[in-house]
Amino acid sequence: MMHPPSLVEIRQAAERIKPYAHRTPVLTCQAIDEMVGNQLFFKCENLQKVGAFKFRGACNTVLSLSEAEAAKGVATHSSGNHAQAIALAARMRNIPAYIVMPENSPEVKKRAVAGYGAEITFCKPTLQARETTLAAIVEKTGATFIHPYNDYRVICGQATAVLELINEVGNPDIVMTPVGGGGLLSGTALSMHYTAPQVRVIAAEPAGADDAFRSFQAGHLIPSENPQTIADGLLTSLGDKTFDIISRHVEMILTCSEDGIRQAMRTIWERMKIIVEPSCAVPLACIMEHNEQFKDQRIGIILTGGNVDLERLPWG
Amino acid sequence: MMHPPSLVEIRQAAERIKPYAHRTPVLTCQAIDEMVGNQLFFKCENLQKVGAFKFRGACNTVLSLSEAEAAKGVATHSSGNHAQAIALAARMRNIPAYIVMPENSPEVKKRAVAGYGAEITFCKPTLQARETTLAAIVEKTGATFIHPYNDYRVICGQATAVLELINEVGNPDIVMTPVGGGGLLSGTALSMHYTAPQVRVIAAEPAGADDAFRSFQAGHLIPSENPQTIADGLLTSLGDKTFDIISRHVEMILTCSEDGIRQAMRTIWERMKIIVEPSCAVPLACIMEHNEQFKDQRIGIILTGGNVDLERLPWG
Repeated sequence: MMHPPSLVEIRQAAERIKPYAHRTPVLTCQAIDEMVGNQLFFKCENLQKVGAFKFRGACNTVLSLSEAEAAKGVATHSSGNHAQAIALAARMRNIPAYIVMPENSPEVKKRAVAGYGAEITFCKPTLQARETTLAAIVEKTGATFIHPYNDYRVICGQATAVLELINEVGNPDIVMTPVGGGGLLSGTALSMHYTAPQVRVIAAEPAGADDAFRSFQAGHLIPSENPQTIADGLLTSLGDKTFDIISRHVEMILTCSEDGIRQAMRTIWERMKIIVEPSCAVPLACIMEHNEQFKDQRIGIILTGGNVDLERLPWG
Repeated sequence: MMHPPSLVEIRQAAERIKPYAHRTPVLTCQAIDEMVGNQLFFKCENLQKVGAFKFRGACNTVLSLSEAEAAKGVATHSSGNHAQAIALAARMRNIPAYIVMPENSPEVKKRAVAGYGAEITFCKPTLQARETTLAAIVEKTGATFIHPYNDYRVICGQATAVLELINEVGNPDIVMTPVGGGGLLSGTALSMHYTAPQVRVIAAEPAGADDAFRSFQAGHLIPSENPQTIADGLLTSLGDKTFDIISRHVEMILTCSEDGIRQAMRTIWERMKIIVEPSCAVPLACIMEHNEQFKDQRIGIILTGGNVDLERLPWG
């Protein structure tokens, strides 16, 4: 896929992944609505297969491969949800998945990836080690590398979540997603641009990992340097493909504090009874901390994932 | 309501509460299905208003009161989900709610009940203190006492959850609920008796609080004595009304260990990304511990509630 996905391609992706992905519920919570003075619609991708929206992009990409490509398998480096998503999507197509993981990844993530039948190669916890280890595997196996976000097939898959959201509750005034590498945000922005350009697309980012905010302001890519946030899904920097789409179709990027993320996360756990990872809570944290900008708005929020270490919760 | 609810009355209750209650999602989880060798459909009443199915019975009862009754308010004694459910239902009808709570109730539950605008009276943590305190309030205010389970209007409300479940996924082979006081179980059993009597209704109970199991075996009510279980929603004993319905329409009651409950609870948190209280996990624990009795069955499970103290999780 050599260009940003069209609406037709996004709809094809939705059909392609439909038999494999959950159609996740959209939940509302009166208590939180009263707290923030807006009407929120939470699209629960934390309840997606592998516990994250990442399954959509991975599944779409794996299923898009030709038979010849697929036979050689797929590969990626990731310590997180993308690794699990690729592993499960590959298992569903019955092809090999080669996952490079930092040796210090949490046990629960190693177990999950192994549980989906992927072949794991551990490496030193540096980006360089990940990339050289992955390159060697791709060289040896001929597997297709699937980037976690800077890939139009992945972006196309992520774009399907918001279509389900608006199909269920109609067009809100605003759609919000967190932004890390920008796969979900750029896919969401494209879907809204095609189907309802009047809907405002707003991104939410931790102040401690605000490369998207700074890139967006500057008009050119500024990679993260030593980002610090408990929202560990949002440590990555934008890629050129996601940045380009975001620059065109996102209205603004808001940032929030670490305390705000913790508080929003706990509010979602306590009031909605669902498990969300810190990254998930960033849009709600932004609504709370920039509350003067939101009043009586219908806001669709994509909850991105629910993979947290239950032994180490950020409170108590 | 002087007799067990009819199907018409249950359907009326469903219509009555519809504008106020969530239609909760039914979730599936392939990983758990593979683990237990059955196909499970989880009706997520932990995502119901106030975080528990109790809202259905409370809402149905509060809305069923005459104008004259309603004007005097409603009252109950409870340290748990029923108190919150009554408080919210009363607020929705804009009538007073008088809640008697043991003074040692968890802060989070006191806050929740107060947050719904109920008038709380604290008492010593004994059943006798609760009952005498409540009687004094009813005497003084003329409020209607709403029992947490041994009340046909409450049972009628609880009966609506399983109708939504089968409406969404069709008739399973088996329906399971936990049993404490028996309100949910008896309502569920009635709904299945009326609409699909071939579906097996099986109850799940902690071995440490097995009064329903023992009563069922004996054929007469045997109240709990000093029950011990982390499933704190299931400490109560059956009432005469719930026992009678359960005796007629439930096929069997299974029990499970405390370790089984903890393991099942953690499995649901980890794999399904939803917050369930220990009581909720009892049916899955029974399926795991009596696995020889379940093979390739489609099993509907009602997840009852998600109110847990996030500071004190039963692991780690």
